[in-house]
Amino acid sequence: MEIKSKFVSESIVVKNELSMPNDTNPFGNLMGGKLMYWMDIAGGIAAQKHSGTVAVTASVDNISFKKSIAPGSVITLTAKVTRAFNTSMEIYIEVVAENIPAKIKFISNSAFFTFVAIDKNGNPRKVPEAIPETEEDQVLYDGALRRRQLRLILAGRMKPADANELKSIFDAKI
Amino acid sequence: MEIKSKFVSESIVVKNELSMPNDTNPFGNLMGGKLMYWMDIAGGIAAQKHSGTVAVTASVDNISFKKSIAPGSVITLTAKVTRAFNTSMEIYIEVVAENIPAKIKFISNSAFFTFVAIDKNGNPRKVPEAIPETEEDQVLYDGALRRRQLRLILAGRMKPADANELKSIFDAKI
Amino acid sequence: MEIKSKFVSESIVVKNELSMPNDTNPFGNLMGGKLMYWMDIAGGIAAQKHSGTVAVTASVDNISFKKSIAPGSVITLTAKVTRAFNTSMEIYIEVVAENIPAKIKFISNSAFFTFVAIDKNGNPRKVPEAIPETEEDQVLYDGALRRRQLRLILAGRMKPADANELKSIFDAKI
Amino acid sequence: MEIKSKFVSESIVVKNELSMPNDTNPFGNLMGGKLMYWMDIAGGIAAQKHSGTVAVTASVDNISFKKSIAPGSVITLTAKVTRAFNTSMEIYIEVVAENIPAKIKFISNSAFFTFVAIDKNGNPRKVPEAIPETEEDQVLYDGALRRRQLRLILAGRMKPADANELKSIFDAKI
Amino acid sequence: MEIKSKFVSESIVVKNELSMPNDTNPFGNLMGGKLMYWMDIAGGIAAQKHSGTVAVTASVDNISFKKSIAPGSVITLTAKVTRAFNTSMEIYIEVVAENIPAKIKFISNSAFFTFVAIDKNGNPRKVPEAIPETEEDQVLYDGALRRRQLRLILAGRMKPADANELKSIFDAKI
Amino acid sequence: MEIKSKFVSESIVVKNELSMPNDTNPFGNLMGGKLMYWMDIAGGIAAQKHSGTVAVTASVDNISFKKSIAPGSVITLTAKVTRAFNTSMEIYIEVVAENIPAKIKFISNSAFFTFVAIDKNGNPRKVPEAIPETEEDQVLYDGALRRRQLRLILAGRMKPADANELKSIFDAKI
Repeated sequence: MEIKSKFVSESIVVKNELSMPNDTNPFGNLMGGKLMYWMDIAGGIAAQKHSGTVAVTASVDNISFKKSIAPGSVITLTAKVTRAFNTSMEIYIEVVAENIPAKIKFISNSAFFTFVAIDKNGNPRKVPEAIPETEEDQVLYDGALRRRQLRLILAGRMKPADANELKSIFDAKI
Repeated sequence: MEIKSKFVSESIVVKNELSMPNDTNPFGNLMGGKLMYWMDIAGGIAAQKHSGTVAVTASVDNISFKKSIAPGSVITLTAKVTRAFNTSMEIYIEVVAENIPAKIKFISNSAFFTFVAIDKNGNPRKVPEAIPETEEDQVLYDGALRRRQLRLILAGRMKPADANELKSIFDAKI
Repeated sequence: MEIKSKFVSESIVVKNELSMPNDTNPFGNLMGGKLMYWMDIAGGIAAQKHSGTVAVTASVDNISFKKSIAPGSVITLTAKVTRAFNTSMEIYIEVVAENIPAKIKFISNSAFFTFVAIDKNGNPRKVPEAIPETEEDQVLYDGALRRRQLRLILAGRMKPADANELKSIFDAKI
Repeated sequence: MEIKSKFVSESIVVKNELSMPNDTNPFGNLMGGKLMYWMDIAGGIAAQKHSGTVAVTASVDNISFKKSIAPGSVITLTAKVTRAFNTSMEIYIEVVAENIPAKIKFISNSAFFTFVAIDKNGNPRKVPEAIPETEEDQVLYDGALRRRQLRLILAGRMKPADANELKSIFDAKI
Repeated sequence: MEIKSKFVSESIVVKNELSMPNDTNPFGNLMGGKLMYWMDIAGGIAAQKHSGTVAVTASVDNISFKKSIAPGSVITLTAKVTRAFNTSMEIYIEVVAENIPAKIKFISNSAFFTFVAIDKNGNPRKVPEAIPETEEDQVLYDGALRRRQLRLILAGRMKPADANELKSIFDAKI
Repeated sequence: MEIKSKFVSESIVVKNELSMPNDTNPFGNLMGGKLMYWMDIAGGIAAQKHSGTVAVTASVDNISFKKSIAPGSVITLTAKVTRAFNTSMEIYIEVVAENIPAKIKFISNSAFFTFVAIDKNGNPRKVPEAIPETEEDQVLYDGALRRRQLRLILAGRMKPADANELKSIFDAKI
């Protein structure tokens, strides 16, 4: 029997990493590309946990890198599902950087990745509904439809005129 | 004396890679995270070429991964500047995947990265103007302002009401 | 002012990894050496969290690898301090392996690592006491002295006759 | 025809490595986890040489890291079988660190790993006896039974009361 | 139908890399071994492009490393076929190193690799003729026979007395 | 006081490696580029041992790859100095590949690398004479001058007419 729904908390994945020399630019700060590599791994595991099957990256939303991360920092990635759409899942990933000896800790950035669940034959497979539990879960769940419309427009698969939810972008914070 | 402007073609960077076993998911297809890692390296070199200095990743726009890339494929990344904004540069990266023995070749995906030029002391540094040369260069140059407004709104740094250029998203293909 | 004590829960570090092709033996199962590499990273971060400074590996206790871990498995490492001894900390690391599509999940193994806190000049530095909170924390705390005596004997730094705590090994499960 | 026994010297494996930036902690010294990764590879090759088949890591005994290893050091790992037990082999690994320009050389640490020989179908397979040749080989051979009992007790597979050999731990150096 | 010939330009492969900490010696300069690793990848892709199939490295000619490459440099490898010989192809690879902030750029070195085309069953496979287009292509094409004779002599597969082309080494620059 | 000479045997370096998935081509066989990477490391350590200082790769002689190396094979690299020339050393490296379960073992290839000794300031530094001990050492020592002349001609630094030793190439096996 197929599982119909799962709680958001069942998909939570934490991944701690150390910023090592080969992950840094000439100033010794963590490169964005390495961070996205780790985000993809953490997000993919969260998608596996929610779907119960292998999941592949379908898209990545806009990511901005605000502050540089010093060498030797501890990077804590936390990923969880926000909402499921038939065979795809939106995954929210938050990245915290901490330089422990320097007592510096901040949210480095966050991102939304979309993964598609894949069955044994490599075909897309239906995923359970995601049930929000916390207030944050609910906010993320509510925004998911709007972000999905933006994604479809940016990928050229939806006409802006049809994006009813997205129109709220001009009224609300995404 | 400071260089005032540079041609887009001066920044072109090509990076060929092979999809190796450790870059793949359980189906043997290239992971999105590894591809973004390579895109960040290629884009960063293009930004260095345009600015003449080290450049750090400031943001990555929405990327969608449409088709899976088979193991052993040749991945060709091509990066170039599209437009410069004071201390930042938008870089366009196109990824082509080719399975040579199977005679399969397709554009895997494309993305816009933004890099900030950094001087010796780690501070942002003014970059030359980017001069478009081809028709594609011009289209990319023209769309850069609109994409920049979308980025600022998504990062919460601009009010949608002020995004005059972006309003065209509802009329035109980005 | 120096921090005198910290709760065990303040040091908890979770690290999720995927078993990738280069981490495996010819049967496709995760190599013990790669697992110990990850355990050392996770344990070192927990030791940094407890001590508030950089910490280096001083010793690793007996580890046994009971079941093989299939390719593509999700490896979840959880590390936390058990007890502090002047400048050193014993860290407990538990490893869970999960093959999500196959619905297989088991505790792969566990281990005790000892780390020494290091100050800016590379010298050992006093660490806070570790305060156990849960029942498991208390059991781990109580056993730490016995394990420390075994370590000192195995390293040739203590005479067995002086190991009062260790004698309990012949009565109790370590 | 099955090989009944092999000399210890037939299994000797030497592995020289350089300590590279990504293998080091923030003080530039080699991380314990990387050293254990190399020890596992060297030990696994020695076990393959003795058994004539693939071998997987079953356990690692207590390892202590006494001195830090400077960046750029040459690490020389030497592994050899000490004694065979039906389908398993105890492997002794000694690690020497040498900073050649600084004329510093020392035994960094040593460890006992246990590997199990595996046949084509993934099942444990009988291994040849190991015949000690040098005085050191003989000492290692003689201590193997005692270490095996300690391992079994630590893994909860033997009652301390049954460990006749191990009782000598309270009289002799392991 | 089999392709009989291909232009040299159809095989051109460009590969840009950054010199990262783990690729360098204790002076921070790029190690020759890492450069040869990248040359082999770039050359192998060029050989795939010319032959339309997988190609394996058969030999590498003398390479000399004249100048050290500073950390953070951009390494640009360019590979192309020079001449085809039944189932093998000679590939020319040129390496340019550029330290962009320091405004230093130079040809680091160049090399000739030979690859053999392999069919689906792992057997050597006939490759198309390579048609030189530029003056440089022609010079490289003309020298290929002489270099091939040197290779065969050095590999002990040809008697020097039979190397008619090679005798020109004593008259001309290779 | 400066060391005037050292025995060849003092420089011997053995490096055992396993051929892992990421080191292989689509047929699963070890890539030439990875092998050259390991040869450079092994050769560089031998050069450090002979010179007592850091040494950088100056050139690599012709290498040919005769047989493919199966996945999971044990690769044994052995490096030693053959002859010293003022500030440079010729290093001979032999590579043996062994597929232990399949009972296949063969000399994969061999090569001559040249390294230059570097002092603390990054300048070339005089190295001790290399004293051959075995018959093989003597043969390698005797051929070193001839190979050096070939290297200088190939690098365009010597006129063929001046290469008295090299003329023997047309009479003798290199």
